[in-house]
Amino acid sequence: MKSVVVFSGGMDSTTALYKLISEGDEVSALTFDYGSKHNASEYNKAVQLCSKLNIVLTKIELPLDRYFKSSLLQSGEEIPEGHYQEETMKSTVVPFRNGIMLSIAIGFAESMDADRVVIGNHSGDHAIYPDCRSSFINAMNDASKFGTYNEIGIYSPFCQMSKREIALEGEKLNINWNDTWSCYKGGEIHCGKCGTCVERKEALKGIDPTQYLD
Amino acid sequence: MKSVVVFSGGMDSTTALYKLISEGDEVSALTFDYGSKHNASEYNKAVQLCSKLNIVLTKIELPLDRYFKSSLLQSGEEIPEGHYQEETMKSTVVPFRNGIMLSIAIGFAESMDADRVVIGNHSGDHAIYPDCRSSFINAMNDASKFGTYNEIGIYSPFCQMSKREIALEGEKLNINWNDTWSCYKGGEIHCGKCGTCVERKEALKGIDPTQYLD
Repeated sequence: MKSVVVFSGGMDSTTALYKLISEGDEVSALTFDYGSKHNASEYNKAVQLCSKLNIVLTKIELPLDRYFKSSLLQSGEEIPEGHYQEETMKSTVVPFRNGIMLSIAIGFAESMDADRVVIGNHSGDHAIYPDCRSSFINAMNDASKFGTYNEIGIYSPFCQMSKREIALEGEKLNINWNDTWSCYKGGEIHCGKCGTCVERKEALKGIDPTQYLD
Repeated sequence: MKSVVVFSGGMDSTTALYKLISEGDEVSALTFDYGSKHNASEYNKAVQLCSKLNIVLTKIELPLDRYFKSSLLQSGEEIPEGHYQEETMKSTVVPFRNGIMLSIAIGFAESMDADRVVIGNHSGDHAIYPDCRSSFINAMNDASKFGTYNEIGIYSPFCQMSKREIALEGEKLNINWNDTWSCYKGGEIHCGKCGTCVERKEALKGIDPTQYLD
C-alpha cells in the first residue's frame, strides 16, 4: 500500500507515520506551512524525524494567513491558555484546515499514484474542531473516492481513539516523544499552558520526557 | 445570502457571478494561481471583470506546480488539441483541483461569515474530470456542512446543464464574452484548437465575439 501522510511533526501524525511503516506501507509525508505561530517548531521536528526514518518529506506553502481568522495564525490574536476541549479554545480553529490539507494531499497522492491519504485526527479533537469528526472524514472520503481516477481513500486510524490511546500505541512503536512538537505558541520549549500542551501532558502522563516552561 | 464564488475569469464562473449578482447575493470572488499555463490570461480577465462589477477579488497562490502532474501546469507536457471530452484531454486534468479550490473557499467563507461557496462546473466537464461530477459535489457539500461551524453549503447551479445552456443563460444576463478567457494555452488571443477553445466555440455558436488564432 502506498500512502501519503498529512504530517505535522506532532504526536498524532508521528504515531500514524510509525504505524504505517511498521505495517510495511510505502510512505510519503506531506507537511504544510499555513502561517501558524508554531510552524517553525513543528517543521524542524518534522524534518529531523523524516530524516531519521528515511522518509521523503514535502512541504507545501499555503499563504492563508492574510485571509483566514484564527488565533493559531501569525495574523491572529493571542493564543488562549486552558484545556484543549474548552469553548475558549475555539479561537484556535483554522477554518476547514483538515479539508484543505486533505484535498491537497489527495491531489498529490493521485499525482504520485498512491492509494490513500492518512490523517491522525482523534476523538479528543471532536469537541471543538468540526473537521476532525467522523461525519466530516466519511464525507471527505466519499468526495475523494468520487473525485479521483485512483479512487483514493482517506484512512483515519485514530478517529475513535483518545490521545492517551495514541500515546500508548506510540510507546509500543518505540517513539521518542522528544522527536515531536505540540505547543501552539512555538519557540524552543513547550509552554505547558496552552490547550495543546495541556492535552500533551494528559496523554503522556507517566511517560512524558518533555521539558515544559511552567 | 452571502456567497464566495470560485472564479477563474472563464465563461462558467463568470455566468455564475452574474447570476448571483442578479439574484441579489452579496458576492465575493476567490481566484487561484496554481501554476497553470493560462493563469495570467485568465487572471487579467478576472481582475478587469471584478473591477467592472465592483466585486472584491482575492487571489490565492497555490504552489502545486512542482508536485502535481498535468499538462495544464507550467511543469507539464504540451497541451493536446482536439475535443474537450476526448480521452486524450485527460492529460489536462489537475488532480482534485476542484476539491482543493472548494476547500480553501470553504475555509475563506467560514472566516468571513459567508453562507455558501459557489462553483461553475457543468455536465460537459463530467466526462474526464471526476471532481466535476454530481457525486463529488454532493459528497463535498456534506464534508463542508459537517466540517464548518456555519454549515457552509456548496451551490453548483450548472451541474446538470451543458455549456451551451450556460452560454444562453449568460446572454440573458448581458455578459460580454470578450470579458472572459478560456484557452488553455494562455497568451493574448484564443488558439481555437485546444480542448477548451473547441468547447467555447461550440457553446457560443452564432453568438461568439471571440477572435481565434486559427
